[in-house]
Amino acid sequence: MKKLILLMHCPDKKGIIAAVTNFIHQHNGNIVYIDQYVDRIQSAFFMWIEVEGDFNQSDFEKFKATFYDDIGRHFEMSCSFYLSNILPKMAVFVSKYDHCLYDILAQQRSGKLACSIPFIVSNHRDLEPIAKQFSIPFYHIPVAKESKKDAESKHLALLKKHNVNCIVLARYMQIIPSNIIDVFPSKIINIHHSFLPAFPGAKPYHSAFQRGVKIIGATSHYVTEELDAGPIIEQDTIRVSHEHEVKDFILKGQDLERIVLLRALKLHCERKIMTYNNKTIVFN
Amino acid sequence: MKKLILLMHCPDKKGIIAAVTNFIHQHNGNIVYIDQYVDRIQSAFFMWIEVEGDFNQSDFEKFKATFYDDIGRHFEMSCSFYLSNILPKMAVFVSKYDHCLYDILAQQRSGKLACSIPFIVSNHRDLEPIAKQFSIPFYHIPVAKESKKDAESKHLALLKKHNVNCIVLARYMQIIPSNIIDVFPSKIINIHHSFLPAFPGAKPYHSAFQRGVKIIGATSHYVTEELDAGPIIEQDTIRVSHEHEVKDFILKGQDLERIVLLRALKLHCERKIMTYNNKTIVFN
Amino acid sequence: MKKLILLMHCPDKKGIIAAVTNFIHQHNGNIVYIDQYVDRIQSAFFMWIEVEGDFNQSDFEKFKATFYDDIGRHFEMSCSFYLSNILPKMAVFVSKYDHCLYDILAQQRSGKLACSIPFIVSNHRDLEPIAKQFSIPFYHIPVAKESKKDAESKHLALLKKHNVNCIVLARYMQIIPSNIIDVFPSKIINIHHSFLPAFPGAKPYHSAFQRGVKIIGATSHYVTEELDAGPIIEQDTIRVSHEHEVKDFILKGQDLERIVLLRALKLHCERKIMTYNNKTIVFN
Amino acid sequence: MKKLILLMHCPDKKGIIAAVTNFIHQHNGNIVYIDQYVDRIQSAFFMWIEVEGDFNQSDFEKFKATFYDDIGRHFEMSCSFYLSNILPKMAVFVSKYDHCLYDILAQQRSGKLACSIPFIVSNHRDLEPIAKQFSIPFYHIPVAKESKKDAESKHLALLKKHNVNCIVLARYMQIIPSNIIDVFPSKIINIHHSFLPAFPGAKPYHSAFQRGVKIIGATSHYVTEELDAGPIIEQDTIRVSHEHEVKDFILKGQDLERIVLLRALKLHCERKIMTYNNKTIVFN
Repeated sequence: MKKLILLMHCPDKKGIIAAVTNFIHQHNGNIVYIDQYVDRIQSAFFMWIEVEGDFNQSDFEKFKATFYDDIGRHFEMSCSFYLSNILPKMAVFVSKYDHCLYDILAQQRSGKLACSIPFIVSNHRDLEPIAKQFSIPFYHIPVAKESKKDAESKHLALLKKHNVNCIVLARYMQIIPSNIIDVFPSKIINIHHSFLPAFPGAKPYHSAFQRGVKIIGATSHYVTEELDAGPIIEQDTIRVSHEHEVKDFILKGQDLERIVLLRALKLHCERKIMTYNNKTIVFN
Repeated sequence: MKKLILLMHCPDKKGIIAAVTNFIHQHNGNIVYIDQYVDRIQSAFFMWIEVEGDFNQSDFEKFKATFYDDIGRHFEMSCSFYLSNILPKMAVFVSKYDHCLYDILAQQRSGKLACSIPFIVSNHRDLEPIAKQFSIPFYHIPVAKESKKDAESKHLALLKKHNVNCIVLARYMQIIPSNIIDVFPSKIINIHHSFLPAFPGAKPYHSAFQRGVKIIGATSHYVTEELDAGPIIEQDTIRVSHEHEVKDFILKGQDLERIVLLRALKLHCERKIMTYNNKTIVFN
Repeated sequence: MKKLILLMHCPDKKGIIAAVTNFIHQHNGNIVYIDQYVDRIQSAFFMWIEVEGDFNQSDFEKFKATFYDDIGRHFEMSCSFYLSNILPKMAVFVSKYDHCLYDILAQQRSGKLACSIPFIVSNHRDLEPIAKQFSIPFYHIPVAKESKKDAESKHLALLKKHNVNCIVLARYMQIIPSNIIDVFPSKIINIHHSFLPAFPGAKPYHSAFQRGVKIIGATSHYVTEELDAGPIIEQDTIRVSHEHEVKDFILKGQDLERIVLLRALKLHCERKIMTYNNKTIVFN
Repeated sequence: MKKLILLMHCPDKKGIIAAVTNFIHQHNGNIVYIDQYVDRIQSAFFMWIEVEGDFNQSDFEKFKATFYDDIGRHFEMSCSFYLSNILPKMAVFVSKYDHCLYDILAQQRSGKLACSIPFIVSNHRDLEPIAKQFSIPFYHIPVAKESKKDAESKHLALLKKHNVNCIVLARYMQIIPSNIIDVFPSKIINIHHSFLPAFPGAKPYHSAFQRGVKIIGATSHYVTEELDAGPIIEQDTIRVSHEHEVKDFILKGQDLERIVLLRALKLHCERKIMTYNNKTIVFN
């Protein structure tokens, strides 16, 4: 049985849930999960619905069109529809750290991360052997000061060629240019190695050590123009003490980074996330 | 059997531990706990020692003096000695929130917070009934713009009169003037309702909500001249989601605040904390 | 604006959500929150709905009756309706430990625990002064081997006289007899000082120490005939190490106990919990 | 500069620390870390010392012998000495689950798990491709009812041939026979997918779901004769809710399993663990 996933938001009004659930009921869909959220300050309504039904691609297109005509327009809805059996294509950007890459590849390979990975791209050659281990194409695109524009074009060409849907920055130590961000709004996922908004930018473990915090963190967020300031998807923390040096922060933090990033990627690939006003609504 | 607690730090050298443990052994003390820490970057040595022995006050004074002559001067030690049966006197500063105050009084009353509480002082009258419930003197000292100097004098007079050793700011919503901070270095403990250094200053729960974080925190720290920037004693965090409004952040946060503050107070009262370079070394 | 809370469960069928949301829409209720859960193994449907509307007591009664006639019977629903402005009356049973009692009274007094507390009952006199501090009637009912039946009668009389809706066992060290459990099904809340199902029964901290666990826990659950085996409402854990003795387990654990118990009480008093097949469904 | 690690325990007496630190000082060792623990109930003393010095293999042997003659015998010490540059050889036993195996191999490969891995052995062929990915010898040794004795002999032969120091059961779904346990006391590390002592034995996630717990856990422990009852090295927990089915427990739990197992392996490989009375003392 195929599953259809519907994410929607609209201005909050009476009767939205009833209208949507009636529509689905009348079109022989069986709602297997519904979750909703109302942002009272913004007076905005958000809903996540999972529907079981006998949808082929043409049913799916018809369902979408009818839904919009019958309900969507009236309630001024912004909707996204997905078929759960069509996996997102996710490009992986890395630099030299391997811990997140290993986790992404291992979990994707064993079916726990529901996406396909058309290629890995890096500004260094260090992780090419890991790409080879997992038989995934690896592109080495150096990003020096003078080659930035060139790298950007190569990145965009690769992303287009492979019909990529989303990008993960798996400890990719370069700024993503706005030309790429604009093509992938709320579709580029970064892992930052601090508990944002504490310690944005470079060397957060060093800053955390310097400040003498008792807990460190990691944050996965969507990339926006402003550095480390996009919508937060997932965070987690772990205790440290005065006995830990910067190198201990880094080791403990790397375990957090990969766990937090993988949780965010799974949520994204399972279409559980909406963004709104620079925040995420996570239907989990 | 009385216990003596020794906290010390000095430049790191060979032979410190052996020298100290030998000294104690030779003076009929039985070391029941020893913990040490070396800050390699600063090349500084820190040690916490608990000694069982038959110390009366004069033995104690003699022990201190001999220790300094025999070892302390040679190693350039900075030492603090305590007898575990002499409790610190802690003044409690509050404004209008009662959750930390209730915890402090309940835990002190049931013997889990090893201090005496000579008085509670507040810039409001709201919590006076709680002071009465626990039969603790309550002083109402308003702090308006024009009365700040006056309040400071009254505070200092009270602190002196009661021989206060340390101060807890249990959600006291006023800045402590430097004249008071100078008299109580590393002896004024604040609870800040965020995961510092994220969201210092006023209204951190509102800022956390605005940023869309997935985890909120609380931080207990020693008060220094710079606001919310003193040595961190203890922190903890709790998960939130897009479904939580600011009022939910506040409610969840208050549980963190009181737990984190009480942990910090217990560590302080049990003389488990040293401060150094705006950080804490916590022997726990 | 008053709020009506509806909790319901029934066999899972198509169209339940649409039927319920339509009904409420047609009766001028505004659904401000809906949450639902389907147990696929049992094929059971559960829903929590919060409705804003202009309900007085007679509207409320009429709403309930019409709901059942129009929908409830058809779907074989089991329903509970509450008006959010009518607080539950909760009796507090204690023995000698004060940490949970202090938290319950402080949080209820400051409005964070939405219930009234008609009385405290204990098999010891130790906590009577705390009841006095908070001006709550205290009944001392000893429970010796030979007086058990007598105590039971006194308890039942008190509970009846005060129209009690629910009971909290705030470290009450006695078994509750089935005659009382039968009158309060899913309405007696206990805090057990272990991570159930590990270490049920007496002295769990001693057993946890003996086993050498690295984490201890606390569990709040509804009381059923089988000791420490009722539906679990809330649990939490905290790290320990080989350095902690039983007394440290107890101290750390007490912080968990009061936090976990208070969370469970708040969920219960805000009518967020349903029980089914010896488990809880918590709409949070 | 090489490092020597000394782990020791003995009956608790006055003067142990001073004797040991003096000895090391006199033999030109520089103590860079010392940690100790006294079990008061058993009156047992435990110490972990890290010493920097210019040790070659013969210095090392001489140091050990002299230490025992000068101090060890007198205090009835049980000691283990290690040179930090000599890595343990760890055999990996698996069945069909890949999540722990991937983590072990990735972390060992990138230098975060300080051991060598001479081979992987499994009762199934499923994970052979992963062994190949990492170029590690893979042995398929089926364990059927009638072939158990045969498998045991093959295991023992492999372990002997490769001079294995320790074994990790990375979700190896077979009981280890006592003939192997006897050869590797406190040297076989298992990961159990529950918060022990809750849910020992088979299918703990199913049992946890059945019981309706709100938190699940994972436990890494040394293997002893009694199933899932050996000394616990490390545990961790994660929240679940009524919304999670058994398959969600399994997915969430697998993240715990690999994190907890890796922490335990790192502690073991860095010689941070002593066992005593079926508990671990972890110097961390």
